Amino acid sequence: MSEVAIIPRSRAGGRAARRTLRTTPDFQMLPGLTRGIPVCEVMDGSQVERIDAASMDILENVGVLFRDPIAVDDWKRAGAKVEGEMVYLDRGLVRELISTIPSDFTYHARNPANNVRLGGRHSVFVPMTGAPYLRDLDDVRRNPMLEDLAMFHKLSHMMPALHSSAHHIVEPYDHPISQRHLRITYSSMKHSDKMFMGMTTSPKNAEDVMEMCAILFGEDFMEEHPVTTGNCNGNSPLVWDEVMLGAMRAFCRRNQPVLCSPFVLGGANTPASVPATVAQLNAEALSALAYTQVIRKGTPAIYGHYLSTVSMKSGAPMAGTPEISLMNFMIGQMARYYRVPWRTSSLLGGAKTFDAQAGYESATTLSAVLHAGANYIWHSAGWNEAGMHCSVAKFVVDAEQCAMAYRMAEGPKWDDFDQALSAVPDVGPGGHYLGHPHTQENFQTAYFMPELFDNNSIGQWQDEGGLDTTKRALNYARKLLSEYQEPKLDAAKDEALRDYIARREREIPAADELNQSY
Amino acid sequence: MSEVAIIPRSRAGGRAARRTLRTTPDFQMLPGLTRGIPVCEVMDGSQVERIDAASMDILENVGVLFRDPIAVDDWKRAGAKVEGEMVYLDRGLVRELISTIPSDFTYHARNPANNVRLGGRHSVFVPMTGAPYLRDLDDVRRNPMLEDLAMFHKLSHMMPALHSSAHHIVEPYDHPISQRHLRITYSSMKHSDKMFMGMTTSPKNAEDVMEMCAILFGEDFMEEHPVTTGNCNGNSPLVWDEVMLGAMRAFCRRNQPVLCSPFVLGGANTPASVPATVAQLNAEALSALAYTQVIRKGTPAIYGHYLSTVSMKSGAPMAGTPEISLMNFMIGQMARYYRVPWRTSSLLGGAKTFDAQAGYESATTLSAVLHAGANYIWHSAGWNEAGMHCSVAKFVVDAEQCAMAYRMAEGPKWDDFDQALSAVPDVGPGGHYLGHPHTQENFQTAYFMPELFDNNSIGQWQDEGGLDTTKRALNYARKLLSEYQEPKLDAAKDEALRDYIARREREIPAADELNQSY
Repeated sequence: MSEVAIIPRSRAGGRAARRTLRTTPDFQMLPGLTRGIPVCEVMDGSQVERIDAASMDILENVGVLFRDPIAVDDWKRAGAKVEGEMVYLDRGLVRELISTIPSDFTYHARNPANNVRLGGRHSVFVPMTGAPYLRDLDDVRRNPMLEDLAMFHKLSHMMPALHSSAHHIVEPYDHPISQRHLRITYSSMKHSDKMFMGMTTSPKNAEDVMEMCAILFGEDFMEEHPVTTGNCNGNSPLVWDEVMLGAMRAFCRRNQPVLCSPFVLGGANTPASVPATVAQLNAEALSALAYTQVIRKGTPAIYGHYLSTVSMKSGAPMAGTPEISLMNFMIGQMARYYRVPWRTSSLLGGAKTFDAQAGYESATTLSAVLHAGANYIWHSAGWNEAGMHCSVAKFVVDAEQCAMAYRMAEGPKWDDFDQALSAVPDVGPGGHYLGHPHTQENFQTAYFMPELFDNNSIGQWQDEGGLDTTKRALNYARKLLSEYQEPKLDAAKDEALRDYIARREREIPAADELNQSY
Repeated sequence: MSEVAIIPRSRAGGRAARRTLRTTPDFQMLPGLTRGIPVCEVMDGSQVERIDAASMDILENVGVLFRDPIAVDDWKRAGAKVEGEMVYLDRGLVRELISTIPSDFTYHARNPANNVRLGGRHSVFVPMTGAPYLRDLDDVRRNPMLEDLAMFHKLSHMMPALHSSAHHIVEPYDHPISQRHLRITYSSMKHSDKMFMGMTTSPKNAEDVMEMCAILFGEDFMEEHPVTTGNCNGNSPLVWDEVMLGAMRAFCRRNQPVLCSPFVLGGANTPASVPATVAQLNAEALSALAYTQVIRKGTPAIYGHYLSTVSMKSGAPMAGTPEISLMNFMIGQMARYYRVPWRTSSLLGGAKTFDAQAGYESATTLSAVLHAGANYIWHSAGWNEAGMHCSVAKFVVDAEQCAMAYRMAEGPKWDDFDQALSAVPDVGPGGHYLGHPHTQENFQTAYFMPELFDNNSIGQWQDEGGLDTTKRALNYARKLLSEYQEPKLDAAKDEALRDYIARREREIPAADELNQSY
């Protein structure tokens, strides 16, 4: 069923590369993931076409509400049928528009060694964002401050499988909401030299992010190179609002990619059916993807979504349910059908503490999105309590889980197969391998050894204090932070960024209340 | 890459069937799983052949130790080259022998409604076995008694996604080891009318199990129908011992399936390479599968294994690592290449308590084995601390996870797609679905709603006592046990079983120490 061929990866000099891997500091970023396993495709070709046809029918006959006068005018000029704020999109127009979205592209970080490719077989892990609470280094649940946000940016910088420092991992409550986007963006830029995300909490905020990116990367560079990502949530069913569309324009005009993310609460704002939910979500995503090309033809854009199913008891979004996995597989197929990179969410937990529930939920989603072939794997570290808090303990464990999933998704390594096989007659029936030269040379790289899982005997574990995963992870996070080294910003750029923030903070009234994005 | 086609399943009367599902008591067994999603195949055809060739080379040139005079004689008669206990198997002979293993068959339970098919797209979930400790209903870690074993058999009976009551889920310490197999088998038979496993702790014990099965099912019935499963572990690398081989003969002669299970501690008793480990494991499994057909041509047999990688810190087996997932994908391909049903282990945890680590490890393996297309999914409930204890809390959560994975592996349900889609124009942009008739009719069956995950707000959760997963699961297990109804054994058979046990307990010296199987 799967269309992605397994291409044997020629790794630069097998043994030498492995030796390098071993002696490299733990916190060096892993390159963007290049998948070596096939994608899980649960639909045959006719089912893919059935979803496509259903979505196009929705776009043509039900319509999409664009609650934004500029977008409505844009759509009129682009030739769509418009009645008030209701936009009806002909399937021919949609197909034509989305055909100019690049199927893959490279994200540029301020440290070029941390550039990553996105789309096709290329995927990245991005930490969570938007938590109004954190569980801190003492596992206390409280509102976060700018210092907490900086801590998460530092951890993002140090965990090898995270490819981005994202943006407002937690909401910094000690700074006025109207000016927060400036401090958040600066924190992302300063504490990590990986790529980062850009705030879309209002069109003006998005413009500020673009200006700050221009300072860091140069206006001309941005014209040709994606350097950040904005997220634009839809209001499912079938509504895009002014805030999101305005922010989208700010990004697309500068050639910066946005995630076009319908926000699915399965059963509440979609039908009670997995394929019908995917058809609606697909229509929503297509309408926004098409609009990015109305804004600027050829601008990169990412098929997005936030996926959950809803608890009948509380109405809250659930994580790790089978339908979320199935929808991920299906959406992956649709995104590949349209040849557009796609974003999903991973490692989501609905648990109130970092307990077994959080582990099951997170790992289930992580596995699903890897098999689904997701490209932009967001919310990959820290998300618990349905996104209400970011947990420090969960953050570092999740990030290690990403490293493990990365290894799995690379597929088996065949480069030393014959050499490894030659150990079999050497050792012989009933022998043991630990003393064999091939084992001693390769053990550490052949088998992943998680730092944050305890695999000691119960006696050893008790002797070491009988710590559960949360306590061990918090100790690990403390140790990591004590070893943090800031990847210094260029002094002139740093000054220019600070000047920009100072000027804008004088201009923006501190009491101005704005939406938050998730 | 995947060879399993997606066959749209025609469900007996969509809506009616769903209504039935909803009103059925929660503890009615789910039918054996029929997969609707493709298998994850990480090797191309030439890589499969490379593993096959490497395994055959090992069998021909390195040889396998059969530490058992009867097996050695059997192999001589079968035409193998034998030197002492070392058996060299020609690839032609191996291929010929394994060709008579049925590619799928039906397991018969004493309640025919609980019969399940195995092989091809048909899979079953079987709880863990062999734990020397349990974490009990108060989460206290202690040695188990017969009463604890009975409790796990009752829970196995009641959890819908478990298809078997297995055998010694925990080791009952209050009964002499030499007679334990009798009480264990009786407990499996008495407290559940699902299928169960048979003890292989010695050839004589295995004979006792066969006799008890003959009482329950009839000698003639067993000749034609698999009614239980024995597990035979290999001593990797490349050794099969007398206890396992003798037990294997007891089962195969009666036409009862055994799991031919190399016991892999990756890197310690196999090479430090995933593909080379699979090549060795495959050789070991093939040698035992071939021997089952020497014992009795055409007897059902299952390609088995226990898979782990080893902690460098403690030497202990680890769970949930990426290499375990990859090996599962590869072994699945090999078993399908030979057209033999295959067994794996799932939901393994190395954690000392039922914490986040246990959740990640368990869910990672569960996802992997479902994508790998495993048929006999053993250790699917309760396993923690690398198998040293069975946790009651984990048992019920794992069993619910199996139900969720089952739903995922069935694939999306298309039967009401058009009807569900018609809700989209009804609701329209900006509307909500919860009040729509299609939603009200289908919400409960469209989206899985885990009982054991808390998806309430933090306020609700605190008001309900702020219980973590372990405490909630233990409450759930207590409630379940209070509702347990024994599926009564036929009185005459029950008496005959008791008589048999009484006679054998008079015959077997109580102090006789025997091996335990895992």
